[in-house]
Amino acid sequence: MRASILTIGNELLIGDIINTNAAWLGTFLTLHHIEMVRSVTVGDSEAEIVHMLKDCSKVSDLIIITGGLGPTHDDITKHTLASFTGGKLIEHTPTRDFIVKNFEKRGIPVSPSNLLQAQVPDTCEVLFNTHGTAPGMWFKKDDTILVSLPGVPSEMKHLMEKEVWPKLAEQIGANGTLYRHYLHTAGVGESTLSDLEIGDISHLLVNGVTLAFLPHTHGVTMRINSTGKSDEEARAKTKPLLEHIRKKAGQHIFSELYDDDLPRAFGRLMTEKKLTVAAAESCTGGLLGSKITDVPGSSRWYNGSITAYQNELKTKLLNVPESVLKAHGAVSKETALIMAREVAKQTGSDIGISTTGIAGPDGGTDEKPVGLVWFGFWSAERHFAMKAQFFKNRITNKERTALVALDLMRRALSDIESMPYNAPVFNV
Amino acid sequence: MRASILTIGNELLIGDIINTNAAWLGTFLTLHHIEMVRSVTVGDSEAEIVHMLKDCSKVSDLIIITGGLGPTHDDITKHTLASFTGGKLIEHTPTRDFIVKNFEKRGIPVSPSNLLQAQVPDTCEVLFNTHGTAPGMWFKKDDTILVSLPGVPSEMKHLMEKEVWPKLAEQIGANGTLYRHYLHTAGVGESTLSDLEIGDISHLLVNGVTLAFLPHTHGVTMRINSTGKSDEEARAKTKPLLEHIRKKAGQHIFSELYDDDLPRAFGRLMTEKKLTVAAAESCTGGLLGSKITDVPGSSRWYNGSITAYQNELKTKLLNVPESVLKAHGAVSKETALIMAREVAKQTGSDIGISTTGIAGPDGGTDEKPVGLVWFGFWSAERHFAMKAQFFKNRITNKERTALVALDLMRRALSDIESMPYNAPVFNV
Repeated sequence: MRASILTIGNELLIGDIINTNAAWLGTFLTLHHIEMVRSVTVGDSEAEIVHMLKDCSKVSDLIIITGGLGPTHDDITKHTLASFTGGKLIEHTPTRDFIVKNFEKRGIPVSPSNLLQAQVPDTCEVLFNTHGTAPGMWFKKDDTILVSLPGVPSEMKHLMEKEVWPKLAEQIGANGTLYRHYLHTAGVGESTLSDLEIGDISHLLVNGVTLAFLPHTHGVTMRINSTGKSDEEARAKTKPLLEHIRKKAGQHIFSELYDDDLPRAFGRLMTEKKLTVAAAESCTGGLLGSKITDVPGSSRWYNGSITAYQNELKTKLLNVPESVLKAHGAVSKETALIMAREVAKQTGSDIGISTTGIAGPDGGTDEKPVGLVWFGFWSAERHFAMKAQFFKNRITNKERTALVALDLMRRALSDIESMPYNAPVFNV
Repeated sequence: MRASILTIGNELLIGDIINTNAAWLGTFLTLHHIEMVRSVTVGDSEAEIVHMLKDCSKVSDLIIITGGLGPTHDDITKHTLASFTGGKLIEHTPTRDFIVKNFEKRGIPVSPSNLLQAQVPDTCEVLFNTHGTAPGMWFKKDDTILVSLPGVPSEMKHLMEKEVWPKLAEQIGANGTLYRHYLHTAGVGESTLSDLEIGDISHLLVNGVTLAFLPHTHGVTMRINSTGKSDEEARAKTKPLLEHIRKKAGQHIFSELYDDDLPRAFGRLMTEKKLTVAAAESCTGGLLGSKITDVPGSSRWYNGSITAYQNELKTKLLNVPESVLKAHGAVSKETALIMAREVAKQTGSDIGISTTGIAGPDGGTDEKPVGLVWFGFWSAERHFAMKAQFFKNRITNKERTALVALDLMRRALSDIESMPYNAPVFNV
């Protein structure tokens, strides 16, 4: 089964609202093994709606339509669907009763426009909406199923799960399953990962097994898809590719859980190793600590941090000698190492991690350009500094620096030799 | 001028990524008086891309295409645009040089697929991308302008603002104008702002003047629209409404600049008052300092912060007596005040701000439920604590707490009596 999504509303088109409905529906349909073809947003224009319904029908067995079902004059979805399917509006009594009862319960008088919500095309099957006043509608036009749902996300999701999916499942029957496997990586670029590390895998992309590279802020997630008559069969098909990737690029993979991120994976590693960490931050301004504490329960492995944004505070709070700042500068191997050591010491943590760099957009020199960052790592077993060169954008540099710091610790604690983006390491 | 947006990528279609690019572009084009017709997402399929390019051309003078420009095999936008416009791929030397130089600078070998990024159709004008390796492209096909941009949001936005808009402005000329005025508020909910503070304004919504409430993480932005033959005429029409809103809700408005946020507005206030700040964080884990340092030049007003996530560190690093922690707890007025005072003292800052609360999802009690946060404010002139009750979600609680801390300081430094969300204040 192939599906398109048609979201209706000027507010979506002009970006006043971000189209999270389309993303949710895309995920929902894909997880239910329905192939997504296209997702279209149009304004409250009958001509545009009709045109896209016709055009999407040519490539889709199913069109999910959301939005434009409100009681105001600019909501035209219902009238458009009535005329598109050759029907006329009639009153749906259960919906009318539900609306009246609800308004009575809240002690608010029912207005005529509220009652208009109970009008539906006589060509549809009503999908009763217990979460709001606009009912869902199910049409069959030629070979295509058209489903119209309210644009309010909670109502749309409720109807999709409770009303639409059971009816779809009936139509699809049970023929086969789609298996997905995710490999989340950090500290490696998409092209390095694909060309240099994983290499040619055309011989492994057989029997319907596919591999996609999805770039995220934390790095690149690889998604392997396969299909089969059973979950076991689909799973078995991915095994050779999975083993190849783990062997070639295992050091970059921080998680194979479906829904995961680097701070959570780092937290699990710290829990497993029973270690605690503290951060001495400069260019990240607190972001590294914030990322660590995004994870529930992080008080078990995170003690705290000292952000010394000013040089004087590097001396006063983190004991970086003025002579070191004078000789090597705040953005240097020496400063990074002392910051890491001192924060570990002062907070009684197993690991001290530090960041000091030039976030930009200004403040760079030829010798120390914008985007240059030094990291310090200090534990009882190992002390080292690492140098990285990021870009011009301040927010991106902060984000990258915080994530690279987490990945650096992950690698150091997992005895992985290579560092994020193969950055050079200076052991002391 | 009428525009459509075509976003390309399976990851968008199946909802792995939410399509924020389409929303940003919709807003950008609307603000620049270009009418949005349609926004379409298709997967990495040449047939779908070509079909939608043809179909959108019929109703659009401009099509903005994003995504599918990466170096891997599933990125097919460039080849598709080359064949659609009757061109062939050639190397763009400045882009190649830029790529090589960038990889050299970072000490990473250039892979063949990186160099493929410098290939462009000979039918396009290259929009040079200083923020990444994939260049933007400008085509004219029959009567329609096609603009292809990378899918990475920061690169897309940069090219749109710096390269695409100047070229579009040339084409459009000026006939009539749409004026927009933004009022960014913090520390007030949408319904309180609209119903209780601003009240009935129907008599001011005349002559085509409209008011929209746009909720953001920082609070609510109000957008006033009006049209006229000239910018002056459109502007003049909004004056009565603007004056009414400023009079009724002025204390919540932190900025009236088009593109702004609370950290930047706070930074301007600090610069204007020549003040410095330091943060003592607990439940925000570093996020408050990170938000402050998102602003370029923040080293002028931000000295640093101490995050004492563990109680022992509140004593050791911030001198909160064990007896205070025992008697009142870490989440208390007393602890918040000492944290604020101590961080100001230790960092030599004019203002100390503190956050201590229960971020959740666990750790709450009947007396101190999840979402409870105490703030401390300490300056030479004024010391006070403030209590707020947020919700159950950890990430939202951290975000809200950091933003309320900024708004609290904005109000205190601007002699505004009311606090964010009318939270209770305890002066000492």
